[in-house]
Amino acid sequence: MAPVRVACCQVHLTIGDVPGNRGRVRRAVAAAAEAGARIVVVPELANSGYVFADAAEAMSMAEPVDGPTVSGWIDLARRLDLVLVGGFCERDPDGRLRNSAVVVDATGVRALYRKVHLWDREKLVFVPGDAAPPVVDTAYGQIAAVICYDLEFAEWIRLPALRGAQLLCAPVNWPDLPRPDGERPSEVVRVQAVAATNRMFVAVADRIGEERGVDWVGGTVLVDPDGWPIGGLALGRATTVLADLDLDTARDKRLSERNDVHADRRPELYAPIYRTEENV
Amino acid sequence: MAPVRVACCQVHLTIGDVPGNRGRVRRAVAAAAEAGARIVVVPELANSGYVFADAAEAMSMAEPVDGPTVSGWIDLARRLDLVLVGGFCERDPDGRLRNSAVVVDATGVRALYRKVHLWDREKLVFVPGDAAPPVVDTAYGQIAAVICYDLEFAEWIRLPALRGAQLLCAPVNWPDLPRPDGERPSEVVRVQAVAATNRMFVAVADRIGEERGVDWVGGTVLVDPDGWPIGGLALGRATTVLADLDLDTARDKRLSERNDVHADRRPELYAPIYRTEENV
Repeated sequence: MAPVRVACCQVHLTIGDVPGNRGRVRRAVAAAAEAGARIVVVPELANSGYVFADAAEAMSMAEPVDGPTVSGWIDLARRLDLVLVGGFCERDPDGRLRNSAVVVDATGVRALYRKVHLWDREKLVFVPGDAAPPVVDTAYGQIAAVICYDLEFAEWIRLPALRGAQLLCAPVNWPDLPRPDGERPSEVVRVQAVAATNRMFVAVADRIGEERGVDWVGGTVLVDPDGWPIGGLALGRATTVLADLDLDTARDKRLSERNDVHADRRPELYAPIYRTEENV
Repeated sequence: MAPVRVACCQVHLTIGDVPGNRGRVRRAVAAAAEAGARIVVVPELANSGYVFADAAEAMSMAEPVDGPTVSGWIDLARRLDLVLVGGFCERDPDGRLRNSAVVVDATGVRALYRKVHLWDREKLVFVPGDAAPPVVDTAYGQIAAVICYDLEFAEWIRLPALRGAQLLCAPVNWPDLPRPDGERPSEVVRVQAVAATNRMFVAVADRIGEERGVDWVGGTVLVDPDGWPIGGLALGRATTVLADLDLDTARDKRLSERNDVHADRRPELYAPIYRTEENV
């Protein structure tokens, strides 16, 4: 299969301005498509913003998966011939708040994922998901999705990787935390590690700007199966990171003549520690 | 507990020169102790070197755990009041070759670990271990050990981390592979990730020089629980990386008011993928 151009849109969102956020995301996606992208990733909670005062405020911005935000993304995917992965504030069919992501293409919603590992005050707002990251067979290859803090749990990322994901897409909202001079954001380092240890591509779309006292680091990045950022780092700029990815290379898990990052695993030895009774 | 000075000795070894290698390691450890180190890490296969022609050659350099190399390390630990972690080419009690590491202190061998994930031609030479990384209760805190390629399996590193390791010591032999300009060795990036995602210290002792066509990257590094290298990078130099570590900080797994890198795990969801029948 020919390389596919992948875009990660680093967008400046505004808490509570749902129509405005939809427009900002739509314009970023359209520009990425214009630049040739066929797979586009946009941030976590891209309809609502992130720093909710409380659950009631989040509920006021939440919408079902067939609401206007995701419907608009399907329209975009159809008109622009895209696979689009994005995060949104979801009100689920039982009326619960979810920090969710969808994978959509011209045929509609291909997968809905609900963030499993919640960050800080998200625990006061959202109900965590309990389903594995989806792996979607798209026109361009096997595409998986997780959300932000999920990336920190390498055992969670193994799941879609072992199921054949060639490109893991991650909508995120990464806060700007202190780091030593010359270092990239620590979240980027951890994404490099999960990419390399699974020999798959990872596409992260972050935010920029400031929201109710939280500065976003703007760490949008595309990482290749060797674990190196490609297409540049977007640090702090309202920009889109683009690269042409040969996703087929992520089918090859070999590291050396006799090594394969997945076949070299020894799950019979790992199993004991994953028993819940041993993990408080 | 007061901070403890930890040293990782980046040594130039010579394949087959077992007495010479013992001397080089002994001098590096003595110098580290002189500089105040109380925990010292030395490379993988520090008695033998790495690039064996075949298993017979490795066997000619192997020794039991009560052989001269480890006995010499116990002597050093006793004389210099150290905890020493190092790798050696072991002939086990059944006469099989093992890529092993020991944790020794003044009382003797506290733990023997046999590398579980073998790299490339090691598979032609060594029998892999099948026991979990040890976590040793030392005078300075809980110290664990793994060897080189083991570090690439985050699920394996969880094991000692969940059992309370505050400092993970890793004797390694990292080959010098191509990397983009300005990037540190990819192995260092992955060590940063396992340190940060477990909020523990990691101490890696690598080699330098060239051996039968293999160049060693000399990636010796100490990483803190935030995932940042401390004490500098040793890249390519015959040097020792030293830092004073407050190992007690690695007992605190909190990331935010409501986050804890271990308590946030959801092992009940990870368990299915660690069943061996699903992992070919």
